[in-house]
Amino acid sequence: MTEPAAPAKTAILLVDCPDRKGIVASIGGFLYRHGANILHADQHQDNKLGLFFLRVEWDLAEFDLDWAALLREFEPLAREFQMRWRIEYSGDCPAVAIFVSREQHCLVDLLHRHQIGEFTCRIPLIVSNHPDARALAEFHGIAYHHVPVNGSNKAEAERTQLELMERHSIQLIVLARYMQILSPDFVARYPSRIINVHHSFLPAFTGARPYHAAFERGVKLIGATSHYVTEALDDGPIIEQDVARISHRDQVADLVQKGRDLERVVLARAVRWHLEHRILCYGNKTVVFD
Amino acid sequence: MTEPAAPAKTAILLVDCPDRKGIVASIGGFLYRHGANILHADQHQDNKLGLFFLRVEWDLAEFDLDWAALLREFEPLAREFQMRWRIEYSGDCPAVAIFVSREQHCLVDLLHRHQIGEFTCRIPLIVSNHPDARALAEFHGIAYHHVPVNGSNKAEAERTQLELMERHSIQLIVLARYMQILSPDFVARYPSRIINVHHSFLPAFTGARPYHAAFERGVKLIGATSHYVTEALDDGPIIEQDVARISHRDQVADLVQKGRDLERVVLARAVRWHLEHRILCYGNKTVVFD
Amino acid sequence: MTEPAAPAKTAILLVDCPDRKGIVASIGGFLYRHGANILHADQHQDNKLGLFFLRVEWDLAEFDLDWAALLREFEPLAREFQMRWRIEYSGDCPAVAIFVSREQHCLVDLLHRHQIGEFTCRIPLIVSNHPDARALAEFHGIAYHHVPVNGSNKAEAERTQLELMERHSIQLIVLARYMQILSPDFVARYPSRIINVHHSFLPAFTGARPYHAAFERGVKLIGATSHYVTEALDDGPIIEQDVARISHRDQVADLVQKGRDLERVVLARAVRWHLEHRILCYGNKTVVFD
Amino acid sequence: MTEPAAPAKTAILLVDCPDRKGIVASIGGFLYRHGANILHADQHQDNKLGLFFLRVEWDLAEFDLDWAALLREFEPLAREFQMRWRIEYSGDCPAVAIFVSREQHCLVDLLHRHQIGEFTCRIPLIVSNHPDARALAEFHGIAYHHVPVNGSNKAEAERTQLELMERHSIQLIVLARYMQILSPDFVARYPSRIINVHHSFLPAFTGARPYHAAFERGVKLIGATSHYVTEALDDGPIIEQDVARISHRDQVADLVQKGRDLERVVLARAVRWHLEHRILCYGNKTVVFD
Repeated sequence: MTEPAAPAKTAILLVDCPDRKGIVASIGGFLYRHGANILHADQHQDNKLGLFFLRVEWDLAEFDLDWAALLREFEPLAREFQMRWRIEYSGDCPAVAIFVSREQHCLVDLLHRHQIGEFTCRIPLIVSNHPDARALAEFHGIAYHHVPVNGSNKAEAERTQLELMERHSIQLIVLARYMQILSPDFVARYPSRIINVHHSFLPAFTGARPYHAAFERGVKLIGATSHYVTEALDDGPIIEQDVARISHRDQVADLVQKGRDLERVVLARAVRWHLEHRILCYGNKTVVFD
Repeated sequence: MTEPAAPAKTAILLVDCPDRKGIVASIGGFLYRHGANILHADQHQDNKLGLFFLRVEWDLAEFDLDWAALLREFEPLAREFQMRWRIEYSGDCPAVAIFVSREQHCLVDLLHRHQIGEFTCRIPLIVSNHPDARALAEFHGIAYHHVPVNGSNKAEAERTQLELMERHSIQLIVLARYMQILSPDFVARYPSRIINVHHSFLPAFTGARPYHAAFERGVKLIGATSHYVTEALDDGPIIEQDVARISHRDQVADLVQKGRDLERVVLARAVRWHLEHRILCYGNKTVVFD
Repeated sequence: MTEPAAPAKTAILLVDCPDRKGIVASIGGFLYRHGANILHADQHQDNKLGLFFLRVEWDLAEFDLDWAALLREFEPLAREFQMRWRIEYSGDCPAVAIFVSREQHCLVDLLHRHQIGEFTCRIPLIVSNHPDARALAEFHGIAYHHVPVNGSNKAEAERTQLELMERHSIQLIVLARYMQILSPDFVARYPSRIINVHHSFLPAFTGARPYHAAFERGVKLIGATSHYVTEALDDGPIIEQDVARISHRDQVADLVQKGRDLERVVLARAVRWHLEHRILCYGNKTVVFD
Repeated sequence: MTEPAAPAKTAILLVDCPDRKGIVASIGGFLYRHGANILHADQHQDNKLGLFFLRVEWDLAEFDLDWAALLREFEPLAREFQMRWRIEYSGDCPAVAIFVSREQHCLVDLLHRHQIGEFTCRIPLIVSNHPDARALAEFHGIAYHHVPVNGSNKAEAERTQLELMERHSIQLIVLARYMQILSPDFVARYPSRIINVHHSFLPAFTGARPYHAAFERGVKLIGATSHYVTEALDDGPIIEQDVARISHRDQVADLVQKGRDLERVVLARAVRWHLEHRILCYGNKTVVFD
């Protein structure tokens, strides 16, 4: 947790912990005593696993704790309930990097959404293993880094990419149809901070060429999935999925075309929910407070 | 609010009131002090109208207030925050009447769901202006009351129906494709306690023969809507809607057929949510805590 | 192909063959010369595999060929184009057997649809490895055969089932949540004539307990699939699929409940399309002329 | 019908006429005699109105009629069956104008689809009553015409627009969230050649501010509709519709955001189907051969 960069209007507290009596009362009481005006609150209990999840957002106008004081004052309560927790400030505008390969439909979509204010973030750079999207990046005034990747230079390419991430203090990496597999080392540095879109309804059709596989199997719906990237390919916590109907008339090219519309929306929703601090991971699953 | 009829495992508190600081802390503190183990909690703030809505369900095992004590102890807090509120006990099994005309697809569906435990309620009687569904009612061991309605006997028919409702202490009336319009007087006796299914995507195609109207207009999706019945025809608070895709190949008969599948599910969801005390009405809208 | 049992109003010709110039002209000319008034026609070309598929339905009122003559006259044309073909008469009312285990939601749904005329078929018997659905069968006036299946009597049970199928000249077997696996021998006797519903979005979550598997994986949509049964478990040609949205709030029991609504509709659509002769299988896929 | 501008690979015949025996045989025979290799064929009969609709696409490689000959030779057959008909060549690349106001999400989407080859057309110009989208137009190398419209200059503005349309031989006008109402005179010049997207599920919420109206009514799904523009506002033949689920949590701003995703896809599908000559209008409805 870092100090908020800019004066914020609202703060968001995210909590998960063992479920126990008194959590809601304690947090509610804490916020009330310090003048918080709650704007949104959502909680979830996994009664089977005995876990409690909370997202609460409040207006800071009359809240009497600054960032450092909030951390200090909340700490005992967090300890008592064995919370994993974090505070986010709505004024913050985290730095997001987009990785892309040749297909630009997700990139075009993300950049337009950013432009019209759907995403609260900065996008200081786009990284690609191809030169194709440079003009688009420049149109949006975003630096474009062409980092070719091939069989022999993968480690070096990742070093270059990681340097870029660090230089720009990147807090979220969005793989917008980036067709290279990141190494476990790379992934381990950004836990729950790399979002990928896979062009199938996971767990069906993992790996390469899912539309071809879907066509061969003769499914009647195709899907797309956005998920956090983990070491295991296409197996990270699922954030969002959607499907579209197809028929025997649809050839692979039609699946690809219809799939683009799915990929765009499931990726964009995942990015927005992440930026709005609506996602909590546990086990290999997500809680999405919408 | 009536005393729970049977020993209950959980209690549900439903609240709406002007939004103010401290509501969550106060209710959370109250429940905690009395030993409530919260199982589910969901809240909603309409920041524009300044309204607060809450649904909280807790385990009664270690809760130290019985029904009468709970009402008495909660009252001051409710008054302080100007709450409209009610308590429901999960052990309760309210009496539900189903009204039906000729088409039985919703009735068949509701009775099967009831049979397999999707609905926590009793269904002491079915009322119909036609004799058609008697055998089905008998198969399920439910009393069937054939109350014919025509141009001249409407008031008398409603008197008969109301007597039946009162005799069986009916708390929810489900219009499962009941094709007669209830009088304002009848409706006024069961505010937010009569659920209807209309076979269109409201507010499109109100009134009679919506599938014919949809066909004429050439829409590409048809819909169905479940809603609470108010004096204004097809204008009550919407609980649930769903749609299905149609094409130029579909004739009116196909719309009717596809629509039956929609009607079933939107009505069943509305009934279940009502029985689980998940619905709060405000203005002409619903909050559905799912 | 068997002679139509009853006077029919319309006939349906189903064809698949290598794609070649002149097929449409030849069939169109043939039907025209014999006075057919075409009511519906749908065709499909798989340009990649070079295959042609046709479904054409015509009014028999002025058609000048009876069943035997039609077969005789069409044969040369069929041979010329190397067609696989069949003729169906709309007056026909094939015998359908429904197999069910404990869960009756699909059975209830199928029987009601049959009752209101959605399916053109007879249902002379229901087969179950449990006694549970007997009352329902009797309510619909359908013979109920309880054929218990356990580890040691499977072959014998299948012999009993096959005798029942033969005695009733069963032409379609619908597995309406029948939880036993049919032997390859059994399946081989009814190629493209056994329809199953699997409670997942195939090919995800094949095998047992798919809702549990879906819950563990943390998917955001659940599905159901109807398909023809082949030797390979859950791998036959897919006829229909549908999905429903779930969230972190949904436990396995909620998935099961939401899934029932999917299972009902995907199975019912498959049965209706089969009975309306809208499905052609090729490879491991289906063409569904809707 | 104009002579094809470029050598074409396939031709498309679109027909509607009174339904009569022999149409399919006659057209099939005609195409076969002239060496057409049929790639796709789709037909529809409105048995109630007695109308027949056909779309057939064939490979021109061995077809023995050029454009002029085809028109001449087909004419007698067309006359015999009282056909309304047209021939389109796939090589043709019609000129499309996009009209836009301030919101650019549909424009961004259409231009990217055009760029990656989803639309077979040229886009020589974009017309707007605002200057906002000029940079985007220039990025795509498309002329941008800012034609301000206000209460007093509407007729003059339309003259300017019509001159632009004529100068560029525009064959399709796409209103991509163009918020001005075109005059009946303008509309009459482009019958079935102006496609609009309306941000509601028509016929619900016609006119201005449909998301506000949807919010007020408390619907549980919002929609978007693409349609041909006719004199009657929001009442032209519907081409495509889609919906998205909303809940009580969604404020008007959320509806606007979710609606943008719907608007994009329903407009894009309509444009593609139009350009692929898949749409036939009759009465106030469309047949969409997909």
